[in-house]
This record gives sequence, structure tokens and C-alpha cells, in this order.
Amino acid sequence: MLYYLSDYTEGAHPRILERLQETNLVSQPGYGEDRFCAAAREKIRAACGKPEADVYFLVGGTQCNAVTIASLLQRWEAVIAADTGHINVHEAGAVEFTGHKVIALPQREGKLSADTVRDYCARFFADETHDHMPFPGMVYISQPTELGTLYTKAELSALHAVCGEYGLRLFVDGARLGYGLMSPAADLTLPELARLCDVFYIGGTKVGALCGEAVVFPRGNAPRHFFTLVKQHGALLAKGRLLGIQFDTLFTDGLYFQISRHALEMAARLKDLFLRKGIPLSVDSPTNQQFPILTPAQMQALDGKVLFEVWDTLPDGRAVTRFATSWATTEQQIDLLAALL
Amino acid sequence: MLYYLSDYTEGAHPRILERLQETNLVSQPGYGEDRFCAAAREKIRAACGKPEADVYFLVGGTQCNAVTIASLLQRWEAVIAADTGHINVHEAGAVEFTGHKVIALPQREGKLSADTVRDYCARFFADETHDHMPFPGMVYISQPTELGTLYTKAELSALHAVCGEYGLRLFVDGARLGYGLMSPAADLTLPELARLCDVFYIGGTKVGALCGEAVVFPRGNAPRHFFTLVKQHGALLAKGRLLGIQFDTLFTDGLYFQISRHALEMAARLKDLFLRKGIPLSVDSPTNQQFPILTPAQMQALDGKVLFEVWDTLPDGRAVTRFATSWATTEQQIDLLAALL
Amino acid sequence: MLYYLSDYTEGAHPRILERLQETNLVSQPGYGEDRFCAAAREKIRAACGKPEADVYFLVGGTQCNAVTIASLLQRWEAVIAADTGHINVHEAGAVEFTGHKVIALPQREGKLSADTVRDYCARFFADETHDHMPFPGMVYISQPTELGTLYTKAELSALHAVCGEYGLRLFVDGARLGYGLMSPAADLTLPELARLCDVFYIGGTKVGALCGEAVVFPRGNAPRHFFTLVKQHGALLAKGRLLGIQFDTLFTDGLYFQISRHALEMAARLKDLFLRKGIPLSVDSPTNQQFPILTPAQMQALDGKVLFEVWDTLPDGRAVTRFATSWATTEQQIDLLAALL
Amino acid sequence: MLYYLSDYTEGAHPRILERLQETNLVSQPGYGEDRFCAAAREKIRAACGKPEADVYFLVGGTQCNAVTIASLLQRWEAVIAADTGHINVHEAGAVEFTGHKVIALPQREGKLSADTVRDYCARFFADETHDHMPFPGMVYISQPTELGTLYTKAELSALHAVCGEYGLRLFVDGARLGYGLMSPAADLTLPELARLCDVFYIGGTKVGALCGEAVVFPRGNAPRHFFTLVKQHGALLAKGRLLGIQFDTLFTDGLYFQISRHALEMAARLKDLFLRKGIPLSVDSPTNQQFPILTPAQMQALDGKVLFEVWDTLPDGRAVTRFATSWATTEQQIDLLAALL
Repeated sequence: MLYYLSDYTEGAHPRILERLQETNLVSQPGYGEDRFCAAAREKIRAACGKPEADVYFLVGGTQCNAVTIASLLQRWEAVIAADTGHINVHEAGAVEFTGHKVIALPQREGKLSADTVRDYCARFFADETHDHMPFPGMVYISQPTELGTLYTKAELSALHAVCGEYGLRLFVDGARLGYGLMSPAADLTLPELARLCDVFYIGGTKVGALCGEAVVFPRGNAPRHFFTLVKQHGALLAKGRLLGIQFDTLFTDGLYFQISRHALEMAARLKDLFLRKGIPLSVDSPTNQQFPILTPAQMQALDGKVLFEVWDTLPDGRAVTRFATSWATTEQQIDLLAALL
Repeated sequence: MLYYLSDYTEGAHPRILERLQETNLVSQPGYGEDRFCAAAREKIRAACGKPEADVYFLVGGTQCNAVTIASLLQRWEAVIAADTGHINVHEAGAVEFTGHKVIALPQREGKLSADTVRDYCARFFADETHDHMPFPGMVYISQPTELGTLYTKAELSALHAVCGEYGLRLFVDGARLGYGLMSPAADLTLPELARLCDVFYIGGTKVGALCGEAVVFPRGNAPRHFFTLVKQHGALLAKGRLLGIQFDTLFTDGLYFQISRHALEMAARLKDLFLRKGIPLSVDSPTNQQFPILTPAQMQALDGKVLFEVWDTLPDGRAVTRFATSWATTEQQIDLLAALL
Repeated sequence: MLYYLSDYTEGAHPRILERLQETNLVSQPGYGEDRFCAAAREKIRAACGKPEADVYFLVGGTQCNAVTIASLLQRWEAVIAADTGHINVHEAGAVEFTGHKVIALPQREGKLSADTVRDYCARFFADETHDHMPFPGMVYISQPTELGTLYTKAELSALHAVCGEYGLRLFVDGARLGYGLMSPAADLTLPELARLCDVFYIGGTKVGALCGEAVVFPRGNAPRHFFTLVKQHGALLAKGRLLGIQFDTLFTDGLYFQISRHALEMAARLKDLFLRKGIPLSVDSPTNQQFPILTPAQMQALDGKVLFEVWDTLPDGRAVTRFATSWATTEQQIDLLAALL
Repeated sequence: MLYYLSDYTEGAHPRILERLQETNLVSQPGYGEDRFCAAAREKIRAACGKPEADVYFLVGGTQCNAVTIASLLQRWEAVIAADTGHINVHEAGAVEFTGHKVIALPQREGKLSADTVRDYCARFFADETHDHMPFPGMVYISQPTELGTLYTKAELSALHAVCGEYGLRLFVDGARLGYGLMSPAADLTLPELARLCDVFYIGGTKVGALCGEAVVFPRGNAPRHFFTLVKQHGALLAKGRLLGIQFDTLFTDGLYFQISRHALEMAARLKDLFLRKGIPLSVDSPTNQQFPILTPAQMQALDGKVLFEVWDTLPDGRAVTRFATSWATTEQQIDLLAALL
């Protein structure tokens, strides 16, 4: 069976397993106070060009989103997201579970524009009754987006500006951040991203780790007692070293970026393959997720041989699908897929 | 100053004040266990044609919505509402504060259609990843809607049917229910409403009471320990008699319906007045809220003399406004407004 | 039937009903923005000697507690209370429902001592693992307490001091505040109380109003957007005038204090009666609640003729009971009770 | 530096790392739907003698507690725990964050007795005002307790019985369950435990895994949509295989029990050592945590050479400390400690 289901269908990049092995008997305190976390924090600060950044390691993406959003919002505030945003669609209402509304606004190819945010805020504050409404307090975006697309530096700068105008915090969900930074289409570096938002996370789970996401408050602006808040959400890992070792490894010798580049190359080959076969793409994604629209005949050809996600079924019977690549995807797998199509 | 700001700008219908006076020294237990509440419950059950109904008296509308929705939803469930729905717009995120998402769907003139709900649910359950999403568990509608419009019996029946298909509870926010039942445009009786939904409330605050809403579970289907849940939300009134006396009065000799009819007649005059003056209405409302679109000149003519709500400003500078009538609106007030326009 | 069940078994002090009548047709905006609320706020500020105080009118006690506590605590904080405290025992977990722990500490006759609080805080901050624990953020006390006892000025000052040492806010639940201020045993004035805490409320429901509590932030220190938070909790009354008119009346010509004095006089007579009859009191209460311990024979003598609360049954079969007086208690009622005992 | 700080200061048992290595390139779906989780579930069911059990893998202990408790309680219910219980003390209010009160009751050596629970429930339901109070809905205990002690079969049976009487669910926090089952003092097997409670978890993190806890609903009685609830709490691991592989390994060839026995043997040596040196133990723990009371001189002797937790400082200056052993503790470490004391 060929797996294109997601970028988390195998274990971890071999270098990570090696490091877990090498460090296994080193005794260290728990809860992220170990020396591996300390080293990983330093390397992430350096990669972000932000020596003053606060860095916390959490286990998963929904957890990062819920903890971070709840911690940064005031009780009267809501978070703005694209209606396609992960927090609005696929997190089982985890943000609302913390007591906050997700204000879902229209997007284009998964991207929320600064104008959309500005328009919403302008109308909100012009409304005489806005004290009866949840206040916009944060903008949540994903880079890359849930549709594989990328915010440009100009677009992110514009969001940063509108957040400044209205006192909103800007949060970037980077579950697949490596694929956004290393894409040939990207014009945004990690330090630029760190400068343009209030908090973001660097996804590990989907970029070669067993688990783990690094939440970065670039200006040392973590909420007070964030450690306790993480614990309160059940998100504090006892053996924090598991996260520290992985991120230390990912940010040593550029492994994180190398993993990302590999998956992007495999995705580019996938894209070529689909286009060569005359298979249209639902969205033009420059990252590691590709969204081919397959005919029933093509679906049948792959049935039982290739695993991927079906996102939607069109009125004409064709299926919008998602194929994802990762550090574990091989050229041979692409060739096998090509043979089947 | 002429008040058309809302239907809650004066005290209470005089008959209510009289009854508060008459009963003032009668000693009764608290928390809704008094004989006035008992009498009011019986009269409401009779008016609904539902002798088995559970009836609880709460203080206000947002409170009713939050307590009832949170009590009837399972933790994994969300509530569907029109994007114009009060819970989605004007309740400061009170539903989300209880941990549940509001799924906002498109509407027409404030009304959510059964097809919209069915389409959402069908797509939800067809989605392979729906276990990662908040489950639809309830449909919330307002009768009349926030735009003054009315669901017909056919429309409500269709919503009832789709709720049955997908195991959703149907909740009708009746903050202004009297105006919906007594409108000449209405084709739905209170017993029919009670039969077609799982829970609804009969608004007192906006129909002549000082405060108070009667939450009705028509088939005796109140959630277990609803009393304790009401208390937990801080919504249990110590002197429950205040609510019991008011609803007992409102449901004696048809006062609730008489108050509603009066306000509707005043609203019909308002509507005539606007149309006669060539003032367009933003929506054709058959209830006690009217939504004239006023020119800047008209706005100026009323400035400092008439109070009403401004809902929106159009690109051409005109204002979409809301004028509401109540038991306290007089013909003289309509004449005064006519003179000003 | 004689009612000693509670201090909220009748309607309202007649002067309040009169004022509701007199003002009934005055049109005013909703949500506490009416002129009655404005007048009441001014009178309360004057009575507190705090012209800069923020004053909000809410409907009931549990509501006040939950909204105020949740609004003043940070997410990582808990509220300290006596283990007999109303929020710990009788509010159906309303504080926990907002996400915060109640730290219940031992008391004496319902009173929490500064030493108990200091000891808890000292141990908390000395504990190396305290970042894994909810931080103490507030002290909640009731004046009078749930057992009818009173904090002295010295005791409240000591609590104020320990709160200052540890950065805790001090919240005084004044559901029966009048009975605390007017008791012959009281050595604390309203301005002194206002100076010694961060927030308190002046109970209306149990002191002659139909409903309503005035939350006072004495130094103008209401949380940002408290109005919106009140709405989010479903605690914002549409016809805020109902609360404004009542508090305006209660704070005109000292009615609030006069009502309190009357109930206290009746309670003193009750106490005398019990002591004369050789009935022991469970606690020596100087306020409007009395706690006689009745024998089974005495219980039987009152059965079906007098209503009161049974708090506990002792191993020897006697019952700890509560008798409460109010504005509506008459000398005749005391005489009738005396005749029965 | 000698580490006795906790049982989670090293990586994982070597067999676990080997299996991660061996399975690394096996492609499998996410979210616990992989074949490793399936195999681990079967082995756990077999070990529990409960083929019908529902088994879910979560990441950490606080997370298990919060998700499971919130999912099994009704909204009006609270959870009873010993006042020393982990959920009451060391989880940053995670249970309250989900909206539920922890009712803390007195214990002996960390253990809650059936009589204490029965007495609380009897008083609760006898109280006329109990509808104003959070209902007891669950009993939470830890096996071993936070003080290292063990419930006997008789004690657990008695708790099971009282839970049955009052309709409470019984939840056993087994963060260190292996040490409870394998202790020479234990008289309770895993199948007996599974029969006597409604839900429990088998701790991995503290018994040789990198992370992970297996939540077991022994009678297939997982709450509906528990998967979605886990997601809503941010507790669903994308690469669920990480948990599946670990538990599959731990429950192959009795590794979980072998690890537990080893740590218990090391703890027994520690205990012997303390007693031989005349060092008193704060509690007589038969499990992997030992609580020696050290003099200032002894503390000084270990300073900078041995890491352990200080739990309390006694008035005479001595320190109550905790030393924990694990799979990674060696005889040599015990000898080194002996030499220092």
C-alpha cells in the first residue's frame, strides 16, 4: 500500500531516533527543564534571529492552538480565522471549549486578507452595540494554509499592520511551517515571520518528529505563568526531554529545513505527475500537500493500492483529494503512483 | 424624546404591577417553588396544549439561550444557527463561554431553511474526518427572527423533520414570541410550535414584563437536574415569585396576547407611515420591529427628538434603522413621529 | 403558616413597589444605561465615600459571585474561601463552571482568618512545585457570614493586609450586607468596608428588593469590559431600570439601613425568645439569621405551623435550624412563634 | 549527579527504543487507528481479562484525568478525591478548568475510605438544599497513591460498593499502576482492578515509556464519541503509533511488570538503606516512592550530589523528601547513595 494519506504516517527521521538512543540514559529533570530543551530553545532563537524569544515545547497542534489562543485572549475576546482555518473546522471545537468564539471570515485559497480583517474590525467598532459582542482579539492564520497555499511577505506584513491598528495579536499556526519556509514559492524567512507576528509555532509532528511543536513568543512575550497554563490544559509533558531532543536534532545542521526540502521535492514531482496525466489540481499548492481532482476511473485504479484523503465529491462524481509527502516519501513511491495512474 | 429604541424601554404592563402589589405580603418559598410559579406553569401548559410540559422561569434571554443550549448539548456537540442569529452575534459569546461552538449558516431574511441544515448535516456525516469536528447537535432559531420575519408552519415543520433525521434538538428563541404568534402574517399557533420543537421560551421582558422568560420543554423533556444547572449558571432567581407572578398575570385572560396585538397594531401603523412617506424598509417585517432606511436628512429631522437603533450605514450614506413598538407605544407617539418625518 | 424560611419569602419593601409604579411610563434605554441606575450609582458611591467607584447592578448573588470572581481572576488563579463559604457549598459549582478552583480553608464560626490565608500562601510559594498548582488569586468572604457572624474591622484589616502581601484581591459577598452594617455588634462602616476590599456587593434581594445586587469596585477598578463579561455570563438585565429604581429607592433616605435595622430588631427578639425558652443557639449570631437547636418535641410543635430551614441533625436527634427575619417580619409573628414554643 | 528526583528522569526502556527503530518505516494511519495501537489494545484487554474493554492511548497523566473526568461527569456533577489527590493538588486546576468541582475529602496515608465517601454522600442527599450543590458523580483515587501507599482489594471493593450505592463512577489513576500491582504488599491483580472500577489508566510515562497512558473502560463503557472529546481537549496524538508501539512493547512478554518489579526492588533497597541508617520514613510506602525524613546534616551531605524532591520542612528543620526509583535505577546508584549518607 502506498501512503499519501498525510505527512505523519511513518515514525521519525532516523537522526531523531539515533539521538533518542544516544541520550537515553542521561538523567535530566522533567517538564521541559532539561538541557535538551534548553539547547533546542537556543537553536530556535538563533534560527529566528530572536535571542529574546520565549520557546515552549508542546505535544500536538490542536493543543498548541487551544492553549496559546486561550492564554493570549482576554475573556471578552474572540479569535478571527479563515472559515477554512483548522481551528474553525477540524479541532472538534477545542477553542470554543476554552470559552472563546472563533469568528470565521471568508478567505481566498485558504488565505485571510488584511482587508477582510480590517473591514470586520472597522464594522465591529462602528457598531453601537459592539459591547454586546465578542471583541476581536487575535488573528489566527496557518502558514502554509490548510490548502497548501502561502502568505507572501507583503500579505503577512499587511496582516501585521491591521493587527497593530486594532490591537489584535497575530498567531501563525506553523504545523507545516518547514514546507512554507523552504518552498520555492516562499518569499518569507523565519526571522521575518518571527518579526511579523506575536506568536507562532514550528511544527515537528508533520516535519519529521514523532511528536512535538515549538511555540515561539518572539519578543519574550509569553503570557505570565504560561507554564502553569500549559499544565492546566493537560499539555505539559513529564518527559519534556522527548520534545527537547527532537527539536535540538531538527535544528542541528539544518535538519528541519533539509526534511522540508525533501518533502517539497517529492511534492513537486507529484504535481508534475498529475499535470502530465492531465489531472487538474483543485488549488495550486506550492507546498507538500497536493489536491488532485480524480475521476471515478482514476479513483478505482488507485483503490486498495494507494491511500490518500478524499476532501470533497463534486457534482460530476469526481473527487477532490489530498496527497501529502514527507521526509519518508521516496522517488520510488512517486514512480509507483505514476505507474498506477 | 420619542422612544422607539426597543420594546423594553418602559416598566411593565400595569396589570403586572398591580399583581405585584396585591401579592406582596404573601409568604412563599423561593427558587420557583412558590404557588405563583405553579399557577403560571399550569396556565402556560394549557396555552401550549401540553399538560406534560416542564416549565422553568429564567430572568433574561441570553441567559435562557446559554443555559438551555449548554444543558441540551452533549459535550461534543455544537449548535447550528443563522449567521444573523442572536446567539451568533449579540450575546458576547455566551454560548461559546459554555464550551460549545455556534455553527453559523447562511439565512434568508433572518430565516434558516431546512435545506441549509440538511445540506450541512449531510456533508458533515459524509466527511470521513467528521470525528475531528464538532457534531451538529441542535438547531437554534428565533421566532420572530432578529429581522422581524416569521417562520411559517411549513418551514418550522421542515426544520422539525430535518432535526429528526439527524438527531438534532430544535430550540426556538421566543424572546418576542407574542409578536410572532399574533401577527396577521402568522400561520402557527402556540400548540403547533410546542409540538414542532424540543424546547422554546416565551419571552416576557420584551412583551410587557419587567423581566423573565419561560423556558418550555413541551414533552416533559427537561434535562435531568435542570434546576441545578440553572443555579450553576447563576440564573436561579431567589425570589422566583417575581417571575411566577408576572407570567401568571401574562397568561391570565390572554394578557400576553393582548399586549402582543397592541404592539403589532402600532407597528403596522409605523410601517404604513414609513411607506406613505416613501421610506423603504430594509426587510418586510410583519412583527413589532420595523427597519426603515432613512436618508441623512431624515436622520437629522429626528435627531434629538426620536430614539431608535442604527443597524448599518449604506454606501450612499443612508442608514438602516430599527424602530420597535411595545405595550407602551401609543397612537399619539406614531402621530408625533409622522409629524417629524 | 409562619415564614422564617429565609429573608426572601415576600415581595419587596412597599416603597420599592411605589417607585416602580411612579416611574413605570418613563422611557429609558436598557442595559443599565438609564437614569435610575445613574442616580443609584451616585447614591451608592456617596454612601461608600467613594466618588470614583464603579457600580454595576446584577440580578442575583450566585451570578455576582461567578461573574466577579471569573472576571478578576487570571486563568491560572483560584479563589480562597472558608470551607463554609457560599461559593464552596451552595452555588452548584458556579465558580468551577467558569474554570476556577475554590480553595476551601478552615474557618471559625464561618470566618476565615488572615493567619489561615497567610499560612496557605506562605506554604504555596515555598513549595518548589507550585507552578503545577492553581495560584491563590483572591480571597472571598461573606459579611455577614453564612453563619450570621461578623468580621470585625480588625479582622477585615488583617485580611486586607495579607491580600496586599500576596497580591490577592479581596472580595466581600454582601448578600446580607445591611444586616452586617447595622448590627449592634458591628464595628465596621460601609466606607471602611469599601476601603478595605477590592470589590464587594450590596445585596438587594435579601434586604427588601425584588431582586438585584450592586457590585462595587471601590477604586474605579472594574475589570476592562466588565459590561461585556456580564453579558457573556447571561447576567445583563435588559430592563436595567428594574435594578436602578430599586437601588435608587433603597439608598434614598436610608431605606436600606432602615430595612436592615428592622430585621435585626426582629432577630434580636427571636434570639431572646429562644434563650428565654432555654433553646440553645448553634452559633451566637448578631445578625438576621438565628440558629436554634430544637428538640424533636419542639420540631413537632412547630410542624405544619412554622417554616424554617433544617441545617443539620445531631446524633442526639436534635436539629440545627435556621430562622431568618426580614423587612416583612412583624412583632406579631414573633409572638405567634413564642406561643407555639 | 545521582537522580532520585522522579521516575521520569531518563528516556525509555531500551526495548521500546528498539521497537521504535524497527517499526519506523512502517506506514500507518494516524490518530490511534494504526495496527500497533490495535495490537496494544488486544494485549491490554487480555492482561485485564476484559475482552470487551475500550482502550484509548493518551499522552500524559493530567490530560487523562481531565479528559476522562470531564467526559464521564454530567454537568451538574463533581468528582470526589482525597485532599492529597493529584487532581486536587498538582494539576493546576485542570479538572476545574473543564467546569467541575473537586470535592476534597480527608484521607489516611493518601487513601480515601469507603466510609468517608458514604458519609459524604449520605449527608449530601439528606440535605434539603442539595439541589443547590454540585452532585457527587465520581470517586477518583490513585493506585498507588501520591504517598506511595496501596489500596487493598477489600478497600477497593468497599469503594466499588459505595459507588454502586450512590451511582458514582469509580476512576483509578494508575500513573504508577505497575508499582502498585507488582509490590509484594499488593493483594490486587489487574483483572480484579478492572472489575472493581469504571475506568482506570495504566501509566506508561512513569513505568518505562517516553510518554503515554492507556485509558481503559473495562466494560466497553467509554463515553460516546470519546475520540472527539479527546480531540477537543487537544489530547489526540497525530502519530498515535508512538503510543501504540510503546504499549505493545510494554505488554509483550510482561515487560511492563518486569520494569515495575525492578523499580520496586531498587526501592526496597532504598528503604532498607534509610532504615539501616536510622532515617525515619514519613510514610511506610511499599512502592517505588520512598519518603525519608532527612536532617539538615544529611541534606547537606547530599547537596550537589543527589537530586530528590523536598516535600515539606518540619518545624525542627528536618525535611520530608521523596526518592523515586524506575527501570533506570541501578544497584550501583543505591550503593553510591549509601556511601554518601
